[in-house]
Amino acid sequence: MKKLINAPDNLVADALLGLAEATTELQIDHKNRIIYRAEPKQKGKVALISGGGSGHEPLHGGYVGLGMLDAACAGEVFTSPTPDQMLAATKQVDTAAGVLYIVKNYTGDIMNFEMAAELATSETGINVLSVVTNDDVAVQDSLYTAGRRGVGVTVLLEKIVGAAAEEGQDLSTLSTLARDINNNGRSMGIALTSCTVPAVGKPTFDLPDNEMEIGIGIHGEPGRHRLPLGTAREIAEQLVEPILADFNFTSRPVIVMLNGMGASPLIELYLMYGEVAKILKRSGINVARNLIGNYITALDMAGCSVTLLSVDDQMIKLWDAPVKTLGLRWGI
Amino acid sequence: MKKLINAPDNLVADALLGLAEATTELQIDHKNRIIYRAEPKQKGKVALISGGGSGHEPLHGGYVGLGMLDAACAGEVFTSPTPDQMLAATKQVDTAAGVLYIVKNYTGDIMNFEMAAELATSETGINVLSVVTNDDVAVQDSLYTAGRRGVGVTVLLEKIVGAAAEEGQDLSTLSTLARDINNNGRSMGIALTSCTVPAVGKPTFDLPDNEMEIGIGIHGEPGRHRLPLGTAREIAEQLVEPILADFNFTSRPVIVMLNGMGASPLIELYLMYGEVAKILKRSGINVARNLIGNYITALDMAGCSVTLLSVDDQMIKLWDAPVKTLGLRWGI
Repeated sequence: MKKLINAPDNLVADALLGLAEATTELQIDHKNRIIYRAEPKQKGKVALISGGGSGHEPLHGGYVGLGMLDAACAGEVFTSPTPDQMLAATKQVDTAAGVLYIVKNYTGDIMNFEMAAELATSETGINVLSVVTNDDVAVQDSLYTAGRRGVGVTVLLEKIVGAAAEEGQDLSTLSTLARDINNNGRSMGIALTSCTVPAVGKPTFDLPDNEMEIGIGIHGEPGRHRLPLGTAREIAEQLVEPILADFNFTSRPVIVMLNGMGASPLIELYLMYGEVAKILKRSGINVARNLIGNYITALDMAGCSVTLLSVDDQMIKLWDAPVKTLGLRWGI
Repeated sequence: MKKLINAPDNLVADALLGLAEATTELQIDHKNRIIYRAEPKQKGKVALISGGGSGHEPLHGGYVGLGMLDAACAGEVFTSPTPDQMLAATKQVDTAAGVLYIVKNYTGDIMNFEMAAELATSETGINVLSVVTNDDVAVQDSLYTAGRRGVGVTVLLEKIVGAAAEEGQDLSTLSTLARDINNNGRSMGIALTSCTVPAVGKPTFDLPDNEMEIGIGIHGEPGRHRLPLGTAREIAEQLVEPILADFNFTSRPVIVMLNGMGASPLIELYLMYGEVAKILKRSGINVARNLIGNYITALDMAGCSVTLLSVDDQMIKLWDAPVKTLGLRWGI
């Protein structure tokens, strides 16, 4: 295992120390492993909290800031944060306008965010709603999931709902918007190599030099099947066709994310985007916006994922709204 | 070799096709492999051109746009673009205010940019000046270089001089500023793994599982020495100490870049930044700005580099000025 770390057990704590040094725009509660905005809370604004296992950076800590999240709870690598973390974050960010939890569909995350919401309500009376993302079309159930996994749509949702929250929309409206986004988004991923969880010290799965795993999860969970290593063109088909088979993306414009899994360089991601765009074009799909890069990763896995989100004018406007985070930054 | 490509010979052409699909802010001359801004030229503005071998993305095409470059010439992977490409770009971007070439110190790049400058002057009378970056303290001469290699400072220089060009500064002033930046910047890199050049199909060098290469170049050129695989703390010392031994960074604020080589995930880069920041703090160095991510890469190499740039108030102001490129984007 070759990684830029001190010790597997310190990875998350040390990365948070680096994050704290990197920017004055964030404030880190190192004890509770919560990343907050440094700027004062905005009265009347609904607060957005997300979180999950570490190893998917910039998700979620890199999406805390103006136009996206108010707080992110970091778990150990690929391990849900605890209800205590989420509860502490909830108490900290609420301004009496309520709190929206954005939860990727993994059993641990679901359970812990639910427990935190109950505690928040019973202990403090804070109004909490949750939205669960489950956009991965690859498999129905998986290693850590009942139902579909929550992946790339989470990034787009945090951006769009984050912008709506800045506009002052109320908790119920934001919750409806978030659910609408999740319902209109689909993703699929592929791995060329396994990731290596530092505490384990060896690749999560074996993948021969001449094979790729289609439909991989962001924790290295098994996908749909293995195929002989294909060209970018073939890989793009393997990713986009199942997405298009699952949802009709021709009726409205789409936002496309071509996401790297962590170890695939940008030149390959640009190239993959070209192949994906070709398929979308010939399928009559109108791409309104796109995002290419490492946005929801799986440690040092080589590979990529495609996310399509069917959007209306309002969602595009919210997508274009200013955002000032480590992971996304524009319009400011 | 596991890569998201169609065929090694088509990598650069296909990646440029993807880039063209990704944004309407760029215009790509696919025949000459030149990336331009799509917006009309600004009369009286000095044009900035850079370029070099592909495989370092987002450098240089990802830095074309408002506040940085006017054009970038893409060579084959790790191979200089030709004088013809540079000449075509020069003719295209000049508005009679002159053109500044930003050239990383590699023998092929130096020779071809020099030839292009001579052709531009003799054929068209365009006023061309060049600045060469040579900030890598690792080795004096290297596989493709006489003198020090040009690496991370190139990114910071393109940002700062690009902002000065937007302000309307003249060619001679920009050239002086660019030289000043190069003189005040130093870099050093480390590899955990080799990159694999697609046309070669196997790793450029062998690096055992328990070793790292200190002082690596961005093409996989040999560094200073190999050491047993170290902790992030030890790696930070191996990178920062030679930089501090080479230049006095205590007299002015610095901009720090913690750059990933392409295959190291963001969680590791955040962590590495924390270790670098600790050393700078105890060395009495004042960090004014920082940049953490994959900005000048070496295909799929795992590893990172550190760049320090000693800056004055004017340079910080130019650093903060709006930039709108695929690779850097803020203040707009």
